[in-house]
Amino acid sequence: MCCLSKSLVYFLSLLFFVNGFADVDPLPSWNEGEIKTALIQFVKDVTDKNSSYYVAPEERIATFDQDGTLWVEQPIYTQFIFAIDRVKAIAENHPEWKKQEPFQTIMEGDLEKMKKFTDKDFIEIVAATHAGMSVEDFEKIVRDWLKNTVHPRFKKPFTDLVYQPMLEVIQFLAANDFQNYIVSGGGQEFMRAYAERVYRIPLQRIIGSAGFVNYEYRDGKPVLIKQPKILFIDDKKGKPEGINLFIGRRPIAAFGNSDGDRQMLEWTQAGKGKRFELLVHHDDAVREYAYGPESKVGTFSDALMEEAMQKKWHVVSMKRDWKVIFNP
Amino acid sequence: MCCLSKSLVYFLSLLFFVNGFADVDPLPSWNEGEIKTALIQFVKDVTDKNSSYYVAPEERIATFDQDGTLWVEQPIYTQFIFAIDRVKAIAENHPEWKKQEPFQTIMEGDLEKMKKFTDKDFIEIVAATHAGMSVEDFEKIVRDWLKNTVHPRFKKPFTDLVYQPMLEVIQFLAANDFQNYIVSGGGQEFMRAYAERVYRIPLQRIIGSAGFVNYEYRDGKPVLIKQPKILFIDDKKGKPEGINLFIGRRPIAAFGNSDGDRQMLEWTQAGKGKRFELLVHHDDAVREYAYGPESKVGTFSDALMEEAMQKKWHVVSMKRDWKVIFNP
Repeated sequence: MCCLSKSLVYFLSLLFFVNGFADVDPLPSWNEGEIKTALIQFVKDVTDKNSSYYVAPEERIATFDQDGTLWVEQPIYTQFIFAIDRVKAIAENHPEWKKQEPFQTIMEGDLEKMKKFTDKDFIEIVAATHAGMSVEDFEKIVRDWLKNTVHPRFKKPFTDLVYQPMLEVIQFLAANDFQNYIVSGGGQEFMRAYAERVYRIPLQRIIGSAGFVNYEYRDGKPVLIKQPKILFIDDKKGKPEGINLFIGRRPIAAFGNSDGDRQMLEWTQAGKGKRFELLVHHDDAVREYAYGPESKVGTFSDALMEEAMQKKWHVVSMKRDWKVIFNP
Repeated sequence: MCCLSKSLVYFLSLLFFVNGFADVDPLPSWNEGEIKTALIQFVKDVTDKNSSYYVAPEERIATFDQDGTLWVEQPIYTQFIFAIDRVKAIAENHPEWKKQEPFQTIMEGDLEKMKKFTDKDFIEIVAATHAGMSVEDFEKIVRDWLKNTVHPRFKKPFTDLVYQPMLEVIQFLAANDFQNYIVSGGGQEFMRAYAERVYRIPLQRIIGSAGFVNYEYRDGKPVLIKQPKILFIDDKKGKPEGINLFIGRRPIAAFGNSDGDRQMLEWTQAGKGKRFELLVHHDDAVREYAYGPESKVGTFSDALMEEAMQKKWHVVSMKRDWKVIFNP
C-alpha cells in the first residue's frame, strides 16, 4: 500500500463503499474461509477499474444451475414431483395408463422404480403433463401446485427450500452489476412460474430445457400452445451450448453442483481473465442431504471431484461453509 | 390541468425532463405527423406512474425486426450476399460445386436465378458457409467481410446503411428504460458480429434464426463448433415462438416491415394495456427502395396492409415520415 497516494486510497474506499464492500458483510450466511474470501476478492478484482482483472458490466455474466445449487433436489427433482402429481391429476382421462409404462409405475407410487426411469420415460411423462395447453395456462397450473404442495421431508413449500447462502451470492453479484442467469437442466417454462420472485433473477435470464411451442389462433386470439416435443436439453454439454444460444457471451462466474454442470464450469474457466467456478457438495445429511457419486439425482462423480481439484474449482462443503442452509 | 397543484405540475415536469420529453426532440429525423406523435405519447403513457397505462420497467420489452426495419435489405439480404461471397471464397476446396446446384448458380453470379432459390437451397448454402468452424472464428469471418465489402448501390459498408430514424427510436426507448431486442429471421451468430456496436443493443438481446452448435474439445480446450443443422427459424410464427423462448415476456412494442413480422405484431397487440405496433413501408425509390407485395425480399403483401389498417398498426411511409434515411 506504500505506493498509493492518500487521494487514491480515499477514492478506492469510496468505490468499495459504493460496491458494498466497506462495513456490511455481503455473505453473512457463509462461514469465514477460503471460498468466501475468494469470492469477495474475485468481485473486487473484476469491478475495480484499476485492476488488470477489470471486466466491463455488460460482460459480467454469472450462471447458476438450479436443482441442488439454488434449491433442494432430493429425494427427486421438484419438477418430477410436479409431473407425478399431474399424471395423477389427469389420470381419469387416461384409463389406458393403468397398464402402460411409465405411467403405471407412477400410479402405483413406486418411488424407487421411478428413480430408474430412462430418458425416454421422462420425455413421455413430460409430453403427457407439460403440453397441450397455452404457456399461460401451464404457468398457472405450476403456480397453483407450488402453493398447495410441500416437500415430503421438510413439510414446507418448495420455494422456501432455497439456499440462503446462494441467494446472498446472487444479491452480492447483482449489487456489483453482474447479470445473473439461471442455466438449468430443468424446464424453462416450469421455472418461469416462480424463479423471478424467488431468486430475483429476471424472467429474461432464466434458461432451461425447452419444448416446442406453436403459435396458433383460438377464438380469433393468438396463443402459444406447448407441444409434446423437446427443442433442446440444457444439461451437460447442452449448458455451454445453451449459454451461447441465449446469452452469446461466456460467463465469468459459474455455479453448479453435479456432473451436469461440468461443461459449464469448463467453458467459463477457459475464457480469458479472472474467472470463478464453484460446485456445491452436499455433505450435510443432518441439515439437508449428503450424496455423491452414487446418487441418481444430482450425481457428483469422483471424476468431477478430481477435475475440480485439478482445475482449482471451489468446492463448497455445506457442512463446513454454510452457517445456515435455508432462511428460517 | 385546473385540478393539478403547482407542486404536482413541477414534479411532472421534472419527470418529463428526466425522460427527455421537455426540450429535446427525441426523434429529430422524423417528420411531424401521426406516427411520431403517437410514439411519443405511447412512451409518455407507459412510463408515467400516474397513468393507467403505466408499465413497470422490467415489462417494457420492445422487439425490432432487422432486415428492412433497421437496415437495407435490397437488392437481397446482406447475409445472403455474405453467403455468396463465402461460397466463392471457399469454392476451390469444392470442385464439385461447378456442376452442383445451388452452388453452380452462385458461381455463375446469376442474381435473378438466386432470388428464386427455395428454402432447401438456402439451407444448403448456410450449411456450407456457416458451419464447421468455432463460433469465434465465424464471428471473425463476418467482421472481416463487413470491413471489406460495400453495398452494390450505395457503395458504403452495410453497417452504415442503418436507418437513422429507427436508431432514434431505439435510443428513445432505451432512455425510457425499455429493453430493446432484435427479433430477426436472419442468423443470430451473423448479427452478433456487428449488431451490438451498430444498434447499441446488448448481445444478450439479439434473437435470430439459430443453428446447432456442438461443445467439443480441440487441443484440450473446449470449443463450440457450428453445425450444418438448423435449430429453429425465427420468422413468421417463429417470431412470437422465439420471443417466448428467449424473453418469456410479451413485448409492449414491436417494429417490422414485412409479412415475416405479422405474427410478432399480432402477439404484441393481443396483450393487455397500451401497445405500439409499427411497420416500415418502403415507398422511397429515390432515397432507398420502393417495394411491396411483389417483392421476393421483405414482401409487404396486400393482406398485411389490410390487417395493418384494420388493427390500426402504424405504417411508416419512408417518403413522408422520414427526414433522412441514413446518418450522413
